[in-house]
Amino acid sequence: MATIRGRMARRALSPGERLPSIRRLARDLAVSPSTVVEAYDRLAAEGLIRSRPGAGFYAVGAPAPLALAEDGPALDRAIDPFWVSRQSLDAPSGARRPGCGWLPPDWMPEAALRRAVRTLAKADAAVLTDYGTTQGSLALRRLLARQCAEGGVEAGPEQIVLTPSGTQAIDLICRFLLNPGDTVLVDDPCYFNFQALLRAHRVKIVGVPFTPAGPDVAGFEAALAAHRPRLYVTNSALHNPTGATLAPRTAHRVLTLAAAYDLAIVEDEIFADFEPEPAPRLAALDALARVVRIGSFSKTLSASIRCGYIVARPDWVEGLRDLQVATNFGGPSPMAAELVLRTLSDGSYRKHLAALRGRLARRRREVAGDLAGLGIRPWIEPRGGFYLWCRLPGGRDAAEVAKAALAEGVVLAPGNVFSVSQSAADFMRFNVAQMDKEALRAVARALAPALG
Amino acid sequence: MATIRGRMARRALSPGERLPSIRRLARDLAVSPSTVVEAYDRLAAEGLIRSRPGAGFYAVGAPAPLALAEDGPALDRAIDPFWVSRQSLDAPSGARRPGCGWLPPDWMPEAALRRAVRTLAKADAAVLTDYGTTQGSLALRRLLARQCAEGGVEAGPEQIVLTPSGTQAIDLICRFLLNPGDTVLVDDPCYFNFQALLRAHRVKIVGVPFTPAGPDVAGFEAALAAHRPRLYVTNSALHNPTGATLAPRTAHRVLTLAAAYDLAIVEDEIFADFEPEPAPRLAALDALARVVRIGSFSKTLSASIRCGYIVARPDWVEGLRDLQVATNFGGPSPMAAELVLRTLSDGSYRKHLAALRGRLARRRREVAGDLAGLGIRPWIEPRGGFYLWCRLPGGRDAAEVAKAALAEGVVLAPGNVFSVSQSAADFMRFNVAQMDKEALRAVARALAPALG
Repeated sequence: MATIRGRMARRALSPGERLPSIRRLARDLAVSPSTVVEAYDRLAAEGLIRSRPGAGFYAVGAPAPLALAEDGPALDRAIDPFWVSRQSLDAPSGARRPGCGWLPPDWMPEAALRRAVRTLAKADAAVLTDYGTTQGSLALRRLLARQCAEGGVEAGPEQIVLTPSGTQAIDLICRFLLNPGDTVLVDDPCYFNFQALLRAHRVKIVGVPFTPAGPDVAGFEAALAAHRPRLYVTNSALHNPTGATLAPRTAHRVLTLAAAYDLAIVEDEIFADFEPEPAPRLAALDALARVVRIGSFSKTLSASIRCGYIVARPDWVEGLRDLQVATNFGGPSPMAAELVLRTLSDGSYRKHLAALRGRLARRRREVAGDLAGLGIRPWIEPRGGFYLWCRLPGGRDAAEVAKAALAEGVVLAPGNVFSVSQSAADFMRFNVAQMDKEALRAVARALAPALG
Repeated sequence: MATIRGRMARRALSPGERLPSIRRLARDLAVSPSTVVEAYDRLAAEGLIRSRPGAGFYAVGAPAPLALAEDGPALDRAIDPFWVSRQSLDAPSGARRPGCGWLPPDWMPEAALRRAVRTLAKADAAVLTDYGTTQGSLALRRLLARQCAEGGVEAGPEQIVLTPSGTQAIDLICRFLLNPGDTVLVDDPCYFNFQALLRAHRVKIVGVPFTPAGPDVAGFEAALAAHRPRLYVTNSALHNPTGATLAPRTAHRVLTLAAAYDLAIVEDEIFADFEPEPAPRLAALDALARVVRIGSFSKTLSASIRCGYIVARPDWVEGLRDLQVATNFGGPSPMAAELVLRTLSDGSYRKHLAALRGRLARRRREVAGDLAGLGIRPWIEPRGGFYLWCRLPGGRDAAEVAKAALAEGVVLAPGNVFSVSQSAADFMRFNVAQMDKEALRAVARALAPALG
């Protein structure tokens, strides 16, 4: 009975599908046919299966939908990759969120945003009422093409596809390149939602140990040889969660191996604007042959304006556009693209970014000092951004600490939600912009049991 | 060589994968081993495959991505389900689009939209800068719950998930319920993008003949028995492309059969606001047990504000939220939800809808008269909406007519883009709100060859 229940739960046996014959299951399980007969009768009595005269038994019951959070190895709820997303996005107002992946409203360019919204009220009726084009605003794609060129990535606006978010940009690439059962490489640790997204694509996820210089090259090559992955998903500019930067020699080795094993790469640029000075980019070195650049404006401009983008080789663009039409009927909201364009073009935006980088540099130092006082040490000192990837003192279990802090209304990001191998149990990712004295005290109290 | 090329194109043979042994392929194709050796040598010379000493031949070459438009039976480009989307969404300004599926800007509530945008400029900073919650604006979900109740669907706000579009609402349901290889039923004819979306999910699409009272019940039952589909996707209020309304007896039979064969149903409500008076709803009769309601505001409010919604049974909501976090990191833009809420709450909106229904009723009569003058006859006279599903005179091929009209900058929607069975070659869907004299003349000229 457990075998059949398990298969139905795993969707290995769908409603309407025929069950194995009594003889075959008895042989497979090395039990007597009468045992199987009794099990099938009980399952039928429970209404889980139905017998069709002369046609054996069939699975019934309501459709068993895909349950992402339960996929893969059964994880403690606290280290489910969805845990931080749920807690951060649905936190009650007033909750503190050092575990979340974005800046508080008062760190964002509020005045420029309000100006952009006011001018939007005077835009052409079509901008306010009509669908956009399948690739999205040409004016915004031109601006992004110029930004790409500044970063050494030569791509025309026709190679850029706007999407409703950075996550959807990666999702679109996955739909375009992956088949269920393919293998995908991620960094270990990596942004937890990469794992969640890849689960939705029913692919095998393999982690590569991450070093302060990027992925461990030996581990990377071994994974390519052993698993023949189709895709590698990573951040270059500032890595999430570690804040590390890809070293030039690592970038070159990664691309050489990618060519040898015919690997495609998604380079997520979402933290690029936080860099003090530009680091090497896979997309620039590879000239977009097998690397796809994706990005969005959620971290430095607004997470409420949903707009991301893909920069890809020209021969992939039409397929990506078709997929976006099929799954979203058009690109991002024309209003959203207009708001992004107006704010990025606002003279104040570059000043905002410069001020933001300075403010974050100070905040990283302050918070690192505060955490040191609790015996919490950063793995590295990031060049930029708002993350500190830290080891807890005395091998404390970060999941337990996060649960204790949550009881006080403080959302933390325990290490193992970022780790495919579950090898970051005593790490925690802190967002320095969300880390106030109150949150620090909650972390101290959550740690106390081990210290006392 | 053609066999291997075909397998690589179909991704039946992926880069890095081993080719069949020479002996096996020779046997499978009933050719001599030396023929296979020569074919493999030539493919290797072309760089498509590579031999590894002692390990046989492997496929190489850039990843062959998913090509939706080329999926399934090779279709003439003019009747590819993407044809109308591409032409309509990317039409040059000034092009006429009687083939498109939305209203022109001057039919939309422009003044109310501008008011909503102006007040948005004064919203809380969080609305302008922050991510939304995973289910989306509670205030908007409460308003939608009240609308559902008016339509006889009892669902609390906690059963509603906001999405970035109506298409993404269906996409999320498909990801939640479907596995690759599952079978899905659609109406024949049906909205062409249902086919495009389902192709992206790699499912088998089966069409059920559609009648003026809804799906043909005998054909529906036969399809359930023959294919055991997991899902049926349809419109109830006003069917796209026909404008037909589901009859009560058909609705009851469909739900009875769905229960007998354990079928889930997506009821797309996107044209609901165009109904003069409410028709039966599967979601209301079934009380959301196996029916999911989806909708959006693109047709009556704005297609630029991207916001749709799902109304589902309570035990499916958490899974849908997780999937949306994984694939979009949060629901629709909080700004978008705010704009929808402000416009729907604007006293003028119900008046706008009433005026819209009256204007469309007049326009349907006028355009039906104009088309009759060309010998083009509507299949039925719809109760509401902006579509007329018409048969062309003299069995003219709608794809040919659409190509001729496109040459004059007029985008039409030929019947077979809506037909899984390709049995609507002499039908055309006309959007009466986009059908001006200029478009009518172009249609007349495009028809002329057959008439003259």
